[in-house]
Amino acid sequence: MSDLLRVRPAATPAMLAIFSDAAVIRHALRFEAALACAQAAEGLIGKGIADAIADLCGGAGIDPADLAERATLAGTLAIPLLALLRAELPPPAAEALHRGATSQDLADTVLMMQVVQATALLAVDLDRVRMALHALAELHAATPAIGRTLLQDAVPIGFGLRLAQAAAGVGDAGRRLEGEVAVHARVQLGGPAGSRAGLGGKGAAIAARMAGELGLVAGVPWHANRTGVAAIAAAVGIVIGALAKLARDISLLAQNAIGEVREPAIPGRGGSSSMGHKRNPTGCQVALSAAIRAPGLVAAVLAALPAEEERGLGGWQAEGPALADLFLLAAGSAAAMADVAEGLEIDEAAIARNLAAASVVDGIGESAAIVSAILAQYRKG
Amino acid sequence: MSDLLRVRPAATPAMLAIFSDAAVIRHALRFEAALACAQAAEGLIGKGIADAIADLCGGAGIDPADLAERATLAGTLAIPLLALLRAELPPPAAEALHRGATSQDLADTVLMMQVVQATALLAVDLDRVRMALHALAELHAATPAIGRTLLQDAVPIGFGLRLAQAAAGVGDAGRRLEGEVAVHARVQLGGPAGSRAGLGGKGAAIAARMAGELGLVAGVPWHANRTGVAAIAAAVGIVIGALAKLARDISLLAQNAIGEVREPAIPGRGGSSSMGHKRNPTGCQVALSAAIRAPGLVAAVLAALPAEEERGLGGWQAEGPALADLFLLAAGSAAAMADVAEGLEIDEAAIARNLAAASVVDGIGESAAIVSAILAQYRKG
Amino acid sequence: MSDLLRVRPAATPAMLAIFSDAAVIRHALRFEAALACAQAAEGLIGKGIADAIADLCGGAGIDPADLAERATLAGTLAIPLLALLRAELPPPAAEALHRGATSQDLADTVLMMQVVQATALLAVDLDRVRMALHALAELHAATPAIGRTLLQDAVPIGFGLRLAQAAAGVGDAGRRLEGEVAVHARVQLGGPAGSRAGLGGKGAAIAARMAGELGLVAGVPWHANRTGVAAIAAAVGIVIGALAKLARDISLLAQNAIGEVREPAIPGRGGSSSMGHKRNPTGCQVALSAAIRAPGLVAAVLAALPAEEERGLGGWQAEGPALADLFLLAAGSAAAMADVAEGLEIDEAAIARNLAAASVVDGIGESAAIVSAILAQYRKG
Amino acid sequence: MSDLLRVRPAATPAMLAIFSDAAVIRHALRFEAALACAQAAEGLIGKGIADAIADLCGGAGIDPADLAERATLAGTLAIPLLALLRAELPPPAAEALHRGATSQDLADTVLMMQVVQATALLAVDLDRVRMALHALAELHAATPAIGRTLLQDAVPIGFGLRLAQAAAGVGDAGRRLEGEVAVHARVQLGGPAGSRAGLGGKGAAIAARMAGELGLVAGVPWHANRTGVAAIAAAVGIVIGALAKLARDISLLAQNAIGEVREPAIPGRGGSSSMGHKRNPTGCQVALSAAIRAPGLVAAVLAALPAEEERGLGGWQAEGPALADLFLLAAGSAAAMADVAEGLEIDEAAIARNLAAASVVDGIGESAAIVSAILAQYRKG
Repeated sequence: MSDLLRVRPAATPAMLAIFSDAAVIRHALRFEAALACAQAAEGLIGKGIADAIADLCGGAGIDPADLAERATLAGTLAIPLLALLRAELPPPAAEALHRGATSQDLADTVLMMQVVQATALLAVDLDRVRMALHALAELHAATPAIGRTLLQDAVPIGFGLRLAQAAAGVGDAGRRLEGEVAVHARVQLGGPAGSRAGLGGKGAAIAARMAGELGLVAGVPWHANRTGVAAIAAAVGIVIGALAKLARDISLLAQNAIGEVREPAIPGRGGSSSMGHKRNPTGCQVALSAAIRAPGLVAAVLAALPAEEERGLGGWQAEGPALADLFLLAAGSAAAMADVAEGLEIDEAAIARNLAAASVVDGIGESAAIVSAILAQYRKG
Repeated sequence: MSDLLRVRPAATPAMLAIFSDAAVIRHALRFEAALACAQAAEGLIGKGIADAIADLCGGAGIDPADLAERATLAGTLAIPLLALLRAELPPPAAEALHRGATSQDLADTVLMMQVVQATALLAVDLDRVRMALHALAELHAATPAIGRTLLQDAVPIGFGLRLAQAAAGVGDAGRRLEGEVAVHARVQLGGPAGSRAGLGGKGAAIAARMAGELGLVAGVPWHANRTGVAAIAAAVGIVIGALAKLARDISLLAQNAIGEVREPAIPGRGGSSSMGHKRNPTGCQVALSAAIRAPGLVAAVLAALPAEEERGLGGWQAEGPALADLFLLAAGSAAAMADVAEGLEIDEAAIARNLAAASVVDGIGESAAIVSAILAQYRKG
Repeated sequence: MSDLLRVRPAATPAMLAIFSDAAVIRHALRFEAALACAQAAEGLIGKGIADAIADLCGGAGIDPADLAERATLAGTLAIPLLALLRAELPPPAAEALHRGATSQDLADTVLMMQVVQATALLAVDLDRVRMALHALAELHAATPAIGRTLLQDAVPIGFGLRLAQAAAGVGDAGRRLEGEVAVHARVQLGGPAGSRAGLGGKGAAIAARMAGELGLVAGVPWHANRTGVAAIAAAVGIVIGALAKLARDISLLAQNAIGEVREPAIPGRGGSSSMGHKRNPTGCQVALSAAIRAPGLVAAVLAALPAEEERGLGGWQAEGPALADLFLLAAGSAAAMADVAEGLEIDEAAIARNLAAASVVDGIGESAAIVSAILAQYRKG
Repeated sequence: MSDLLRVRPAATPAMLAIFSDAAVIRHALRFEAALACAQAAEGLIGKGIADAIADLCGGAGIDPADLAERATLAGTLAIPLLALLRAELPPPAAEALHRGATSQDLADTVLMMQVVQATALLAVDLDRVRMALHALAELHAATPAIGRTLLQDAVPIGFGLRLAQAAAGVGDAGRRLEGEVAVHARVQLGGPAGSRAGLGGKGAAIAARMAGELGLVAGVPWHANRTGVAAIAAAVGIVIGALAKLARDISLLAQNAIGEVREPAIPGRGGSSSMGHKRNPTGCQVALSAAIRAPGLVAAVLAALPAEEERGLGGWQAEGPALADLFLLAAGSAAAMADVAEGLEIDEAAIARNLAAASVVDGIGESAAIVSAILAQYRKG
């Protein structure tokens, strides 16, 4: 897969690491260890057996490339991973490993561990965007500027109002994502058909222990209820859209004939292979490109909802890649726009010039009060 | 536009009424009346003037077809509607009408009034689905049935677990929609560029009064922050997907060779123009068809997020139709699946026969306990 | 369904008529007449019986609203329509009516009759767009203007090159649509499961006669091969995208600070309810809004491809509405952009001023030759 | 990026290689060499200079990981690649390198070189699918089987008709893709703003030479006309949908209670981590999963159509990743379904048993003739 062509421009190394093969394996091993320890705590297997499993999982050196190849053939990660682990365990532990669980338990739980980390990581850059915009919005709350609707000059607004509205979109979107993850990042433990057979009637207790250990929410299995995954995907898609709204505005304001803002100059970025004089809005490009791709990725996860019976054929296998792509795009977009927002160059003279050219006499109304109201929502939040 | 071809099969008369031209005009008149009354209450215009406007709006007989034609030419509903109203008002009231507002204030507020009504209407059928499934799930919680994964026989589950999981999806999705609407169905009052100019510094107070009058949420203008609309659209899309998951399961279980359930016989429904013996799963068809269409409609609303500056060119004009289509599809789907769920025929003999054919010896695990846990979430909710 | 809210702004009366209930019924009656006549010509039924059917179908007064209600209940148009017709026919003709056909034969054939008409209608406005752009492109082929990439001033181009490229997109997209329709607008005649049972071994001959009569392509049944429908949908989606590319450029060039073009002034269009001075790019708005919605509609038709066995459950029922919406959006967009292109105001002074401001010294290269090459492709075509 | 999570299950090593970083670099070097040689042939630069460039490009050892990192910062591949090359060239050649071209020329041409290879590679597995289905369809053309519509038993068909229809979909879709690629896999050479400035009036001739050298189509620049890319994306999406239609049918026919077909047993594939007795339809899963994701990817490419002026901001950057993902999914799907089709186990006894259970007396009509007609279309093609 070509990083040149596809992933890199719209992801960050830290987010790529969260969705790397190595991370998948690390989380998978934690899942198996947590499952064994929880079963031991509930008396289903011996503590020594659980310790053997946990020890192996804590130190197992799995080669991601090799495992990926085996998983491709098998159509699931669990089968070759378990085979590798069982080969290292004494028979009773080998038998106890993964007991009561199924491939989807592992895959779903790993995905949710990644979702939790990804959401936390994303929040950092979303906060950077928001804080930078808040500061600029406050500073320019009462700076008269021409407002534009339908790409035409309209009436004046406070320049900061535009930034505050973009910040409100990013803030609302970030909060929604965190809210969905807080509810739906649930450990998956249902067994082959979601009935928690083979867990000696202790399924709920084991799942609760695992959730605690893995930093996830406890609750019933969700093999057959994928609405939480869909909601998380949609929330990430809205984050991407909110960032792109900011990018749209900045790229329009940065047009040469308008010139109200410019992306910060970052050495080595935004140049042209043929036009040395250009300063391209490369950060905005990353965000706008992500927003072209995100709606289709969200649509894919929604399309997977009508899954067949206890585990769908094709649908849930599509969720993971789409969700990962969404987080990667969001990360790239948030990082790019955080750099843009923090270094945004605002040209007050151009703002004044454009306003004068518009020949409108209205005032900026309650722009400053609206800016204050938007900022206050987040201060108290 | 052909009802035969497109709308009817997947909507209900009540939901069609909510999104009818007549309803749009009714809400628009209420908006103008509420705006005038709020301005009078805040001392911006005289009470007599507001009363004149409110009286006219309360009784105006606008011809939807005629207005639609004028609105098409103008590219906006507000311009011809205001012209019709002003022709009936004395000059001071004509001048006071719509003061401080713009077309988008009207359009967005009307849309949110529809969203509130549509969500409440939808909740009725979603509750019917959920209550019917809960009853069946409880009844069959411990009925052993073969679970199926990847379209293959897997291990036994309680038959009711499958229904409870589908109910959980519908329930979660319905709650999410109500939650988003409770936060984002906000009155829109920003004026030409979202600055609340021309409202004498009373914009926030006027908006709050209007929200109270129109049953909406108060707050800052959201001309340039469309994340709430996107979240509502996504939430409806997830409702549609959750209903389709139920439809998928029922249609699979109703296959002749499986026969565990059948849609209820509804006179005149589900027949074939060429095969008299068939009982087609027509309710499920409505729900599955809606779920084929919904992801693309959600994608359209997400694609509109990166709107240009104070009012986008093309994006926000796309939201309304997509949101209306989503609610229409959801209504048709919920009504169809409510009928299906309430009249679902369950064949215990077929369930037992299929289980026996699967030759697996496992028990149903904690199926009944999971059913109870799912149902309890909604009882307390 | 609200025309105010949804359909009108992006459709034309002529395209709405093609997808009206009345048209559906008219085509359905032509289908049944053609089927009976073809069977008579092949000796399956008597000529008198076929004439009785054809006579009835030629003059039947079906109330669209009433039929729509019955069709909603039945889940198919065919059942209530056939019941209405049979009530008017003597028993042998009543029995012969629709013989060997099924609901989907009727629905698919009607849809393709609409597609053929819609494509021809659309071609008229697409040609208007293209011809107007060609004329302008030729006129301004060598007018130096600043080219813009990534929304930044780049190097000079001939102003006409931009218009020629947009015209090329529209031209290519229109040709593709016509090509797909020429191949895939195939009569559907497969009977209940696509085997042409009950047609006395004359199915291919009957289908060929019907195709001739109805202006469609002859061939094998395509109940279970929906790739043609998907290709037509995608082709319409690309038409919409190509028109929106033109709209994007015009709306950017029409920004006040740039002013190189303006949409023509059309009385009653493009105004603002609050800002009398604005001339909004309303035609471009229609086209851009259509392009926000189109990708999701295409996605819906693609999502319907993996249909179940001889007739899918939900998938093919989703195709018709999505395809109709696509043609309606395309029609509204093409009509709007034809008006825009034919009346486009080009400000050479602004073009020169913006070029001068860009301070670049390069020439316009082969702009004029590329314009000529693009135009030549269509002259010979 | 996690192969475990996302790419591998739905791609093939050969297709991954086509879209690998190494391939991108290889094609990029061939582009620069072809550009220099064509300029020399047209007398713009000296032959010695062109040879120096071609020699370097033929043997340059570029580290993909390093280049990817630099490209991420720059926001484009061209800038760091050209810097690396220029450092190795004498000044006159360094200056001549990439002359008259821009980043997008390189990126678009490389993408089209990949598209040509990917289409040819995909054709091999599509042919495998089609040939295997043709053979099976012919063999079972007259084997009576119950046809199923809306997931209910309908009337008999020849079993082979179902396979022939699926083959027709795959065949039609494959031909469309090849047709689009034959027309639109065009070399890109437009320079900074698509005007072919800086090529001494020889742009068309140089582009023609490059097209010949690189196996692409010659013609005008298409910087600003992205309809060809969109059409290729849609065509790949339809291929994926057509393969998934086959997968849907096979997975439904393979349900335990139906048992008319089974996927071939492939050692290490299709097992379950918890249920040893299962034979999961893993090939179908790959194809169905791809079809869940493809419509959204096509939508992304369509969404990029309304690009800004001479080079869009965000849109064209989104095309490449989406197109690559589509080909990767198509490759995985085609390979999986080729294996499935070639090894498909058909159980004639089950077919007969299911037909008998349906208790319908009709014959299979013209099933065999339709099969012959479908197969004949491809024989002559």
